[in-house]
Amino acid sequence: MSGARIFRSFADMPEVDLKLISLAEYERAAASMLDPASHSYLAGGATDETTMRDNVDAWSRLAIRPRMLVGVGTPDLTVELLGRRRPHPVLIAPMAFHRLAHPDGEIATARAAQATGTIMCLSTLATTSPAVLAEAVPDVARWFQLYVFKDRGVSRELVAQATARGFEALVVTVDLPAFGIREREMRSGVRAPAIEQVQAAAAAGARGQMTPGALAALVDPTLTWRDIEQFAAECRLPVIVKGILTAEDAHIAAENGAAGVVVSNHGGRQLDTVLSGADALVEVVDAIGDRLDVLVDGGIRRGTDVLKALALGARAVLVGRPVLSGLVVDGAAGAERVLEILIGEFRNALELAGAPETARLDRTFVQRALWAPTTG
Amino acid sequence: MSGARIFRSFADMPEVDLKLISLAEYERAAASMLDPASHSYLAGGATDETTMRDNVDAWSRLAIRPRMLVGVGTPDLTVELLGRRRPHPVLIAPMAFHRLAHPDGEIATARAAQATGTIMCLSTLATTSPAVLAEAVPDVARWFQLYVFKDRGVSRELVAQATARGFEALVVTVDLPAFGIREREMRSGVRAPAIEQVQAAAAAGARGQMTPGALAALVDPTLTWRDIEQFAAECRLPVIVKGILTAEDAHIAAENGAAGVVVSNHGGRQLDTVLSGADALVEVVDAIGDRLDVLVDGGIRRGTDVLKALALGARAVLVGRPVLSGLVVDGAAGAERVLEILIGEFRNALELAGAPETARLDRTFVQRALWAPTTG
Amino acid sequence: MSGARIFRSFADMPEVDLKLISLAEYERAAASMLDPASHSYLAGGATDETTMRDNVDAWSRLAIRPRMLVGVGTPDLTVELLGRRRPHPVLIAPMAFHRLAHPDGEIATARAAQATGTIMCLSTLATTSPAVLAEAVPDVARWFQLYVFKDRGVSRELVAQATARGFEALVVTVDLPAFGIREREMRSGVRAPAIEQVQAAAAAGARGQMTPGALAALVDPTLTWRDIEQFAAECRLPVIVKGILTAEDAHIAAENGAAGVVVSNHGGRQLDTVLSGADALVEVVDAIGDRLDVLVDGGIRRGTDVLKALALGARAVLVGRPVLSGLVVDGAAGAERVLEILIGEFRNALELAGAPETARLDRTFVQRALWAPTTG
Amino acid sequence: MSGARIFRSFADMPEVDLKLISLAEYERAAASMLDPASHSYLAGGATDETTMRDNVDAWSRLAIRPRMLVGVGTPDLTVELLGRRRPHPVLIAPMAFHRLAHPDGEIATARAAQATGTIMCLSTLATTSPAVLAEAVPDVARWFQLYVFKDRGVSRELVAQATARGFEALVVTVDLPAFGIREREMRSGVRAPAIEQVQAAAAAGARGQMTPGALAALVDPTLTWRDIEQFAAECRLPVIVKGILTAEDAHIAAENGAAGVVVSNHGGRQLDTVLSGADALVEVVDAIGDRLDVLVDGGIRRGTDVLKALALGARAVLVGRPVLSGLVVDGAAGAERVLEILIGEFRNALELAGAPETARLDRTFVQRALWAPTTG
Repeated sequence: MSGARIFRSFADMPEVDLKLISLAEYERAAASMLDPASHSYLAGGATDETTMRDNVDAWSRLAIRPRMLVGVGTPDLTVELLGRRRPHPVLIAPMAFHRLAHPDGEIATARAAQATGTIMCLSTLATTSPAVLAEAVPDVARWFQLYVFKDRGVSRELVAQATARGFEALVVTVDLPAFGIREREMRSGVRAPAIEQVQAAAAAGARGQMTPGALAALVDPTLTWRDIEQFAAECRLPVIVKGILTAEDAHIAAENGAAGVVVSNHGGRQLDTVLSGADALVEVVDAIGDRLDVLVDGGIRRGTDVLKALALGARAVLVGRPVLSGLVVDGAAGAERVLEILIGEFRNALELAGAPETARLDRTFVQRALWAPTTG
Repeated sequence: MSGARIFRSFADMPEVDLKLISLAEYERAAASMLDPASHSYLAGGATDETTMRDNVDAWSRLAIRPRMLVGVGTPDLTVELLGRRRPHPVLIAPMAFHRLAHPDGEIATARAAQATGTIMCLSTLATTSPAVLAEAVPDVARWFQLYVFKDRGVSRELVAQATARGFEALVVTVDLPAFGIREREMRSGVRAPAIEQVQAAAAAGARGQMTPGALAALVDPTLTWRDIEQFAAECRLPVIVKGILTAEDAHIAAENGAAGVVVSNHGGRQLDTVLSGADALVEVVDAIGDRLDVLVDGGIRRGTDVLKALALGARAVLVGRPVLSGLVVDGAAGAERVLEILIGEFRNALELAGAPETARLDRTFVQRALWAPTTG
Repeated sequence: MSGARIFRSFADMPEVDLKLISLAEYERAAASMLDPASHSYLAGGATDETTMRDNVDAWSRLAIRPRMLVGVGTPDLTVELLGRRRPHPVLIAPMAFHRLAHPDGEIATARAAQATGTIMCLSTLATTSPAVLAEAVPDVARWFQLYVFKDRGVSRELVAQATARGFEALVVTVDLPAFGIREREMRSGVRAPAIEQVQAAAAAGARGQMTPGALAALVDPTLTWRDIEQFAAECRLPVIVKGILTAEDAHIAAENGAAGVVVSNHGGRQLDTVLSGADALVEVVDAIGDRLDVLVDGGIRRGTDVLKALALGARAVLVGRPVLSGLVVDGAAGAERVLEILIGEFRNALELAGAPETARLDRTFVQRALWAPTTG
Repeated sequence: MSGARIFRSFADMPEVDLKLISLAEYERAAASMLDPASHSYLAGGATDETTMRDNVDAWSRLAIRPRMLVGVGTPDLTVELLGRRRPHPVLIAPMAFHRLAHPDGEIATARAAQATGTIMCLSTLATTSPAVLAEAVPDVARWFQLYVFKDRGVSRELVAQATARGFEALVVTVDLPAFGIREREMRSGVRAPAIEQVQAAAAAGARGQMTPGALAALVDPTLTWRDIEQFAAECRLPVIVKGILTAEDAHIAAENGAAGVVVSNHGGRQLDTVLSGADALVEVVDAIGDRLDVLVDGGIRRGTDVLKALALGARAVLVGRPVLSGLVVDGAAGAERVLEILIGEFRNALELAGAPETARLDRTFVQRALWAPTTG
């Protein structure tokens, strides 16, 4: 099934309001536009989806303590990340198969990233290779997400390609020793795009029209911290470990050469009822925040969520599904609009919370909310 | 769009029960009577409206510990506010554009205030100028709410006018360095009333039929505590700082000449997921309650809410949307009835909680409730 | 409006299941059988009815820690109350106007009480006088509930009559210095039964077809603890103070001659958002449980609720609305069945919690539940 | 009413999806396939079913703290139980009357158990005797659940038969001194299967078509720990005490010769609002986990629930209703599939939580979740 075939164009969808003003609206519009099988892959989570929902809810359980009359003027949204200054703290999370969302796939996403000054994390399971992406959108800031395959040669080749093509960091995903139980996918029977579109998987031995789970089985379940240490030692790029949720693992990451970590539960797609990123962030920052860059993903849907993440000690946040929703709705333009909305909301949050610059945010800006937890 | 044109008269609404007995009923009736665009402005809040709903819910999370057999008789509702005794602790919060609610606008509201012994806070963005209001309802107790425009001359002129026309205090709103993201307004496309009705804004440079957000852009985002200090020093009226939510800002307000503060999140219209007034009140009272008058607004819908606010240490409360709902339903008479209901409920709460006078209320009268939080 | 006229007989209601097996089912059946105005009086509470609902929910927030293999056999349900042993800890709470529920009124209730060994508290606002009740059902165990009227002579006469007619205790209600804001009653326009049926009120000056609130205005709002002390000194019956919710008032009751207290919020009909009986019980027991008999009412709907109340330190519980529901459904037989169900459930709870006798219950049998609070 | 008569075969149910992928789906399918009376028995709980629902919810209130990069490979699911190594920690809880679910009854269940390496607990109230079961499925790992009848001779005979027929442990249920109030059963009028199918009950004196409650009345309500001590002393099999919920009873069990305990509330069928197994487990493990094998049942529906139970200190879990749901849907094959799903989910949970073997699980793997409690 090609992305192109299953995609119903935006022009065919007159019932969708052309002026979508929030990420939630983009997600709803995407749900109505995308074919159900692809949607089950993009939008679904593990078993009861408790953690997937909680990723969003957890940010809502935090209340903001805003400060007044700081003379905020036009706030400075920049952040320092891996030693470089970036225009804002929002990144595009690595996600497989953008062509399931839109025929333009990762290249459209990269264009949206470039237009908004956003770092894009290209997935190992992208439907566009690092080389092709770098050629198509040479100026996008980009990191490469690595699944370490059982066939280590493929992984080494991918790292070499990414290094050569201007990717600035290696994001090694460590929470896929097995594939989560995703009941929506099981029910829809969704298949990955034609394997020639997923070149890394093809190189690692994938053949034909596979399920996402079958592709994931190419990943090495025996990967250990020693492998991370080796990658960090051999690779010219800084290594960011993605997928930890505990202080214990944060310490080990720091000791094994990681330049940063992403506190993440894989969008609630792997093990259900694990901690949300928002809840795990505090203990990870407390453990290693003074030594490593800590990033977080999962459930970021509002500019206030970004502010809360930074107030808790994250350097930046990664956003996944909403970007794909933008892609579904309107290709590169939709993904760009989604990023613009989120970054604009974050700017507004800085203004209204009284933080003239991101570095001003600290834990005095947040506290546990007393309101009833939402149950999305 | 004039208020007159959009308003459907009460007589045309036979389905509305003429005997509305609670503020909630007035709000529902107003929602059915007002044109949708104006209603989006009056009733809406920021983004997901979490804080707007929580303003109401937060009072419900407090349980009352009533005392018996104190021989309460007829309770004394009076409070001391800025050194003057007032008949009760309910004020009308400053709100823009009363003519969106009813063609009689602020003058009707003032009549309701006068009839019930209520202090009215006239907004800078009122559709009636301080001078006209003072002339029309000379005996209403009145405070003037000030937005400090980029054009400081306009603000100085407004203060002079208010001082000359019998306004007794200056309420400086400090939580609008930017305009909140109000999705209901964005969707409805609501516009402010014709600019000639909003004289202060016109003086500050507003032209034509503007969005509320465009009007708000006239406000100076670089305002600091130094400006407050200067206002307090220059102005003959006591200065009340409206819009703080933290002990830190309360201390600063006290040090910069404020005579009082209003713990407020702007009705949940500015930054979503900030603390409710009820939740922030405690830390502000603890910080400065012995030195300054602390008032609170947000979500007051029942007489028991007023009692709880006073028990936590507030001197008085401000009520906004319900008064406008009364205005929508029946002009001055409706606003008066809303105030009567609320004040009557407060009297009943004093009687049943065993407080013969407001000064008797302290924190032993409240505790955190164990019931399930409501989620409005 | 006479009770007889408004009552639709059980025989006319074929759709009601003749085998109702829980108090909740009786309440639902009564709601469908009773005329709406009377039902608004029997079933309604103050303003938002938060406390009324919470009375039921609060018991559900407690979890039972049962003990096994104690060889419980047939448990002993008796309790010691005011120095006398009673067959079980369930009492009928004082309630006005039983003839609103059924034309047989308090006499039917008394028959149900006698049949089940239950103490009945006859209300001052009963539609049957103490003398008539004593003559009709001479063997029912009975207490008399006293509202102290502004006309103290009437109250003294009532006490004298009750003392002469075999009432064993005086339950003085102290939480009605004013009438609660009961919106259901305001909307339904319910009236008290013809005043000749409410003899005490008539003696105190009531005339014609009055609202419940107008009747309540006969009660003296200036009553103080000194009056209680005087009643306790003058009256031959033990005085039980009904309607306190704090440790402070419990101490004062003990110091002013009370023989017992009823922790109660008047069924959630007086001040909304006050503490539930279940939540206030602990502090009252801690304050005076070693000196006075502490009883509790509000929201008792299951035998496990009775067990929890006793485990927290109550000597007995009072049940109100469910008894009237039984009365509505089937007169004396219905009220009797309601009491049988509740007492039977309590027996089952003792068996399964491993308490061979009520005296065995203590706080080790309960703990705060972790489940989501119900929200009635 | 025979099981065979009331059962509608799977082949007759085309609307049921043949590929059920979760225990919840099996439960829903069984509800639609089984006759309502039998379903009321299998699926119902005591009174309001608060505890029955909470059994499921309580596991959801625990969040998992997963560890990464431990090189989990293929995890080892085995556990040590009563000194023997077992292939996984899932057992089939003792349940009465399997023929209500399917005409093949306990023999079908035993076949499912054998196929999946699961220990089956045969109920005293089984519709298959220990001898018949042992002959039909000789290789199934099996324990015998004992109700101690008033007629002790019958119980002794059952123990002798179980011991002779290869049952490896005696599970003595101690939480049935009386029968719970099961309103679903009361409403449906469900009857136990023909008494000749329930041989132990017949031997204890049961006659004709009895209600489950009437059968339960054969159980001795005066049983004490002294009886357990005697069983433990006389019986060649290890004695496991099933049905305790407190540390106090755990200590007593340990002192009276128990080889293990099952923390259980009888599936929420006995006393409503008692603690869930998940919540009581911690205090029992803390009390005796170093001396006795602690098992837990109630609400296990997901592999993550099994992981959490083991992380809290349980040696194994028992699963009840879902196995019967499998039986209803497809006989032995359905029960086997249910067990396969659960064990498969548990394997996935070990992989994704980073536990290469069950012994690695400890309390660092769980913490209280912050999300809104589910309310079933």
